[in-house]
Amino acid sequence: MKQLIGAAVVGQSGGPTAAINATLAGVIKGSLENKGAVSVLYGMKNGIEGLLREDFADLTAIFDGNEEMLETLAATPAAALGSCRKKLPKPAEDREFYENLISIFKKYDIRYFFYIGGNDSMDTVAKLTEYLQGGCDWEMRVIGVPKTIDNDLAGTDHTPGYGSAAKYIATTVSEINRDCAVYTVPAVTIVEIMGRDAGWLTAAAGLPALFSRPAPDYIYLPEVPFSKDKFIEDVKNALLKHPNVVIAVSEGVRDENGKYAGEGAQSGAADVFGHKYLSGTGKALELLVKEKIGCKVRSVELNICQRCAAHLQSGADISESLGVAQAAVVAAVNGKTGCMMAMEREGGRIVFEPKEIAGIANAVRSVPRSMINEEGNNVTEECLKYIYPLIQGEVQIKYENGLPVHFVL
Amino acid sequence: MKQLIGAAVVGQSGGPTAAINATLAGVIKGSLENKGAVSVLYGMKNGIEGLLREDFADLTAIFDGNEEMLETLAATPAAALGSCRKKLPKPAEDREFYENLISIFKKYDIRYFFYIGGNDSMDTVAKLTEYLQGGCDWEMRVIGVPKTIDNDLAGTDHTPGYGSAAKYIATTVSEINRDCAVYTVPAVTIVEIMGRDAGWLTAAAGLPALFSRPAPDYIYLPEVPFSKDKFIEDVKNALLKHPNVVIAVSEGVRDENGKYAGEGAQSGAADVFGHKYLSGTGKALELLVKEKIGCKVRSVELNICQRCAAHLQSGADISESLGVAQAAVVAAVNGKTGCMMAMEREGGRIVFEPKEIAGIANAVRSVPRSMINEEGNNVTEECLKYIYPLIQGEVQIKYENGLPVHFVL
Repeated sequence: MKQLIGAAVVGQSGGPTAAINATLAGVIKGSLENKGAVSVLYGMKNGIEGLLREDFADLTAIFDGNEEMLETLAATPAAALGSCRKKLPKPAEDREFYENLISIFKKYDIRYFFYIGGNDSMDTVAKLTEYLQGGCDWEMRVIGVPKTIDNDLAGTDHTPGYGSAAKYIATTVSEINRDCAVYTVPAVTIVEIMGRDAGWLTAAAGLPALFSRPAPDYIYLPEVPFSKDKFIEDVKNALLKHPNVVIAVSEGVRDENGKYAGEGAQSGAADVFGHKYLSGTGKALELLVKEKIGCKVRSVELNICQRCAAHLQSGADISESLGVAQAAVVAAVNGKTGCMMAMEREGGRIVFEPKEIAGIANAVRSVPRSMINEEGNNVTEECLKYIYPLIQGEVQIKYENGLPVHFVL
Repeated sequence: MKQLIGAAVVGQSGGPTAAINATLAGVIKGSLENKGAVSVLYGMKNGIEGLLREDFADLTAIFDGNEEMLETLAATPAAALGSCRKKLPKPAEDREFYENLISIFKKYDIRYFFYIGGNDSMDTVAKLTEYLQGGCDWEMRVIGVPKTIDNDLAGTDHTPGYGSAAKYIATTVSEINRDCAVYTVPAVTIVEIMGRDAGWLTAAAGLPALFSRPAPDYIYLPEVPFSKDKFIEDVKNALLKHPNVVIAVSEGVRDENGKYAGEGAQSGAADVFGHKYLSGTGKALELLVKEKIGCKVRSVELNICQRCAAHLQSGADISESLGVAQAAVVAAVNGKTGCMMAMEREGGRIVFEPKEIAGIANAVRSVPRSMINEEGNNVTEECLKYIYPLIQGEVQIKYENGLPVHFVL
């Protein structure tokens, strides 16, 4: 393997998570530990957009010798470098775009490209790889580092960021379960959880059940068709058993024709300005329960808190997010390119291995049918046992003045 | 002072908080430490309702000698004994009701009555006191122990439960601020916070500003009239300064005629069933920004999470919640009755003192005008310095299987 010496760039892309900065910290750590190959590490501000306008932060200068600052970075939610949602053109359709990119790489002697993100980011890695492999006079190595709370990336057992979101969801729903148990009046609480196409996040709400703790009565994922009639029947059955019914539902549940559960209210309701009312799935189901059952009902949308609650990071997630990124740098230095670093379970532990990007980008990994019960209104023990190791361990977050300390670039 | 020996009852009432079980733990601790006077401590299930149906838990039997279980109780959100919202009749209007109560007290030899709650609960304490003082052949001592996330109880510097909610809000809004900072596209995020009549909770969103950390651009409390025109003007001004505008708003903001900001959308929108759409204040302002400014906008309702997120308890709050309850038992044993235990600042520390219940029940303590800026769109440094000590310190929550351990009766 030929040794390649030069600068590296790293970018963060797509939606924020509680662990994406831990992954960034891992790339920084990996680069500092491989100075023989990586002379300097630049951070692209706002992902590929920052690269195009040559807007970099010298991460080597900022973090070299500052272990404590690196720890603070790892505990900071959202993307410290900023993010973007830019989709790259196809190499065959816009060679000029890539020629411009290469000229920037040449200008800064950039030989390593690390991109942290989900599906769209892996698409960026795949396209850049395709261009470079199509004959280019600039040798460089390109590696994607996974990140998404949705846990829907193909080619990896799970994704960094998911474990912390799952821990937040399981903890919060557990607290909501306690909160709802205090009154004796029949009441339904519907918790709406992120994940338009994959139900991994919503499934995490069921974790307390693995330990015979109070958990949602029913859990609805987008992977199986959602029936409003069946939902009302389920809620009625739950109310017969106890007065405090808690439901977890994915924002993306839809009927067999693909119509979202929230769509009815969206198209039927108009606000004071005559706009269509964009209610969420939880709100729509709240109205449905009010209409069909008439009991006390409320909906709680965990919203962006579930992706940015870094104060409740999962120890396992953060350690893996750091580890997979460090492994990415080592793999690149050792000659790997055109890959995403994946995580696989081997026995009880997680191993990191580079996988060819081509088969990964733009594929979605859903919750398999075997992890959802036959009725389609809960997850199976197999599912909970899959999630269980990912939420283990707590991170000792540093507090100052009563608030968690965050890194700000 | 005459020594009174007998059983004690304790109840929890009103909305759940992250600290109300710490207060219960304080009453238990105080009772166990004063066995010479308190022979046994009963917990009323679902507050006064449980008392009326003689549904008790023997807390002395459960917790005596089990310090660890007491710690778990203190870290458990919501009311472990269950809660109720029952309002007592006036003693002059329904003597029979009180005669029945007294007969239950006699039956169980109950000489001490501790009631943990907010305004409605203090009303219960006041009415029972009034009845007892009006000539009754049963001697007993009645003390209210404050609890409310709203911090709106009169006669006390602040209330147990508020500090933990404030810490959760300040932390979460801090995380939301980071989350919103990742993109460069102009966007407005509106965070709706509890507190229909008092803005204390919403004010806590401003805490990061005390340390020059990113904080909401504007904060709107229910104590000053809310103008939608002024709000839009404020948001436009903020967008001129930076693309990521964050707003904190109380659910209870209303215009000078008392019309809630959420009311417009409530009366204008109808759902698929023809129901009036019960949108929240945040949702209504989200629609307003969309209409008047047209930029990307979203609203986040912290909802019941802000009152039950025990995983993020404030160390100061929990220590005070325990302390004020222990002090209540000591005060009762020493002859006090007809009081609420209040918390006062003396120099840098908090002291507990019993205050006559008559002047406290049914009064609301709002955020004073001096703690709100002249424009009415933010809080002052005086306000933040008042809140600051209440969110200090973290509680080392016990985790098992990756989730916080909760006490279940």
